[in-house]
Amino acid sequence: MLKRICMIPACRNDTDHEPLFRQESYFHWAFGCAEAGTAGAIDIDTKKSILFIPRLPEAYAVWMGKIEPPSTFAKKYGVDEAYYVDEIPKVMQDNYASKTVHVLYGKNTDSGAYSKPASFEGMDKFTVDKDTLHPVIADLRVFKTKEELDVLRFVNQMTSEGHVEAMRQIKPGMYEYQLEAIFKFHVYMHGGCRRTAYTPICASGPNAAVLHYGHAGAPNDREIKDGDIMLLDMGGEYHCYAGDITTSYPANGKFTEEQKIVYQGVLNAMTSVEQAMKPGVVWTDMQILASRRILEALIELGVLHGDIEEMMKVYLGGYFMPHGLGHFMGIDTHDVGGYLPGYPERIDKPGLRSVRTARELKENMVLTVEPGMYFIDSEMDKIIADPTLSKFVNVERLNQFRGWGGVRLEDNVIVTATGIDNMSSVPRTIEELESVMAGGAWPPARDAKPE
Amino acid sequence: MLKRICMIPACRNDTDHEPLFRQESYFHWAFGCAEAGTAGAIDIDTKKSILFIPRLPEAYAVWMGKIEPPSTFAKKYGVDEAYYVDEIPKVMQDNYASKTVHVLYGKNTDSGAYSKPASFEGMDKFTVDKDTLHPVIADLRVFKTKEELDVLRFVNQMTSEGHVEAMRQIKPGMYEYQLEAIFKFHVYMHGGCRRTAYTPICASGPNAAVLHYGHAGAPNDREIKDGDIMLLDMGGEYHCYAGDITTSYPANGKFTEEQKIVYQGVLNAMTSVEQAMKPGVVWTDMQILASRRILEALIELGVLHGDIEEMMKVYLGGYFMPHGLGHFMGIDTHDVGGYLPGYPERIDKPGLRSVRTARELKENMVLTVEPGMYFIDSEMDKIIADPTLSKFVNVERLNQFRGWGGVRLEDNVIVTATGIDNMSSVPRTIEELESVMAGGAWPPARDAKPE
Ligand SMILES: [Mn+2]
Ligand SMILES: [Mn+2]
Repeated sequence: MLKRICMIPACRNDTDHEPLFRQESYFHWAFGCAEAGTAGAIDIDTKKSILFIPRLPEAYAVWMGKIEPPSTFAKKYGVDEAYYVDEIPKVMQDNYASKTVHVLYGKNTDSGAYSKPASFEGMDKFTVDKDTLHPVIADLRVFKTKEELDVLRFVNQMTSEGHVEAMRQIKPGMYEYQLEAIFKFHVYMHGGCRRTAYTPICASGPNAAVLHYGHAGAPNDREIKDGDIMLLDMGGEYHCYAGDITTSYPANGKFTEEQKIVYQGVLNAMTSVEQAMKPGVVWTDMQILASRRILEALIELGVLHGDIEEMMKVYLGGYFMPHGLGHFMGIDTHDVGGYLPGYPERIDKPGLRSVRTARELKENMVLTVEPGMYFIDSEMDKIIADPTLSKFVNVERLNQFRGWGGVRLEDNVIVTATGIDNMSSVPRTIEELESVMAGGAWPPARDAKPE
Repeated sequence: MLKRICMIPACRNDTDHEPLFRQESYFHWAFGCAEAGTAGAIDIDTKKSILFIPRLPEAYAVWMGKIEPPSTFAKKYGVDEAYYVDEIPKVMQDNYASKTVHVLYGKNTDSGAYSKPASFEGMDKFTVDKDTLHPVIADLRVFKTKEELDVLRFVNQMTSEGHVEAMRQIKPGMYEYQLEAIFKFHVYMHGGCRRTAYTPICASGPNAAVLHYGHAGAPNDREIKDGDIMLLDMGGEYHCYAGDITTSYPANGKFTEEQKIVYQGVLNAMTSVEQAMKPGVVWTDMQILASRRILEALIELGVLHGDIEEMMKVYLGGYFMPHGLGHFMGIDTHDVGGYLPGYPERIDKPGLRSVRTARELKENMVLTVEPGMYFIDSEMDKIIADPTLSKFVNVERLNQFRGWGGVRLEDNVIVTATGIDNMSSVPRTIEELESVMAGGAWPPARDAKPE
């Protein structure tokens, strides 16, 4: 008798499939270079920038394209000098032997992952500093230049249009992924966005209560039903810069009374926050403000009753909006700089613990504003089980919302000297949404005659 | 004075961006399971199949979706038993302690990479065999089941339609990437293909001489010009199975006389090979047959002169078609099993060294047939520099083709008992292509009245 068992692990390494390369974000920020296998250095004293490109094998010319010399890349990317990667030790030794080498090394406060510092042969002969660079560049990335804002405005315009296309074409009986297809087509065909900034979330009905729906285990594959609420969180990526917009609306184009109350509550949260935002405002205060609007809607809905101030003390809003109100956005969708040394630390309370920064707003920061209200089974169970929370709840009414889903709305805004500049342009009011879904123009024609 | 230089490496690890998970191909072949972090075992004696799924943290329910027990996955994937991954040591110790554990470990002959064998705590107490499984499963994957063929036929149909959409919409002035956008939209919207099987190659004019154009360093970003030849190599992926079809045609819809000769030469190569294919035929012989057709066209074009038999002896065709004629296709685009122990080894000659298998054809193998003819600067330089090759060449005429590009045609076929079943269905003759690009039907209406 055979005595054998075979075991197969599930990670893709036995293949010659190569995913499309996407540049590392810090490197892209510093050099804007699309090619794989490159490295770069900046002489802080002279401001001289140096790009190192890989020396390509002869076969590259047949399979991948013409082999260009370093000078081509120096010109293309506007750096002062370019060499081959295998020349790094010599270039460093010949020109910078007396200098301290600062390498990028630090923790990403969203993922917990550490960047991998640069290294080269003979680096042990240099004084190497791993600590200085990361917090400095992370903080520089928080404040966008005019050129960065131009790219972000462009990708936001394309992302907005892609959302409008999806809401124009939706009808019950379609599959969720078809909205992803419509969106991706629009941003690529008309905006040159080859990638999305993240895996699109196209949630219908109950799936709209799953914050990061759409992944490989739940791949936007449900058939959309009449009466469903939709939650679409999709953003294009252009020249590595992200768009990150969320729209919500009824699949059939007409809000029910319940959908109106939930939707309007989330829109009130968004509007209140966007009206309050300006330099000096602390971001976690905005999370609290949004939470208040969400609680107001839950009272109107008959799910909660009692004193809002008391509800705020036990962070009841955090069970209906368990994510952060928004995050920095740029080359990374969840951009860096949220929790740097010297800035406020993460607050460990429901809702607040998910906020990706507790910083004070300043001009030229770019953030998402993304309040939401969700009926998540596990969160509702927690509320019902905890007497300090359940005393505010009409349990029978709450249970009616199991399977209802949720609503999230997300804009991408620039903090200006006096307030914000909203880069997103999608229908937001109930009237606007019902009009566009019924075939109305977007944006509404400015010169249309009043009827 | 400051003495500092900063260095930034270019690999993306300082971010919380997670690419969309795609299952490892051997694991998918064995278990068909889409979820990440899983493992599986098969008891060879009893045929019992066991799936191990990750134990998910509580937060998963909020962010990713409802947490399902192992039994849900046992039912979903039709396995006999399912447990948590952290139960592997106990399940193995309790039930299979006396058995040899066969783990998957071996080299991918296309990439040179090795698979990472499964391991678990306490595995050192078992007899472990790393050698047996890999060649056995690789060879099993070469021969497709009826169910696999059904999926491959579906993804080929969608891929064919996507190509026809692109050729219907192309016009000079568009950008190459817009054809990628049209293709991806079609296969996703109408075929549910969330991924392409590989990065689409959308090459116009000179780029059509770059075999794997379209990567991050050359991202399909050229404006298509009137008079360009096009080369589009694009395939959808459905349930992890690949389509891999290539079409070529003039951007403006009308072949020039030169384009006709090059195109017809490649089509002759494809037709000759497809007519010759049947069980018992050796794949490298097909590469040689294709090469002959390519050389014939180059003679007609006035680029070559002399005796074809002599040209064949010096592998002159391999400089105009430096890639393999075709490869196994399945869960990997370049599917496994090409060079297994006990089968013929790779032949180190121009063209032939790129063929991904030298095996004899057998029923239920699935292969691509993809002859091509390209005018690649570095290859033309090699020919001119080598007197044993250049004696066949009209150098002045050859140099006229610098920047011309190339043509590749690719079908996906099943080897049957008596020949092949071609799964691809795209316009192939010059007449068919010019008709479809001028607005004609595809496939041509079967019941159309003769005019
Ligand atoms: Mn966001
Ligand atoms: Mn192929």
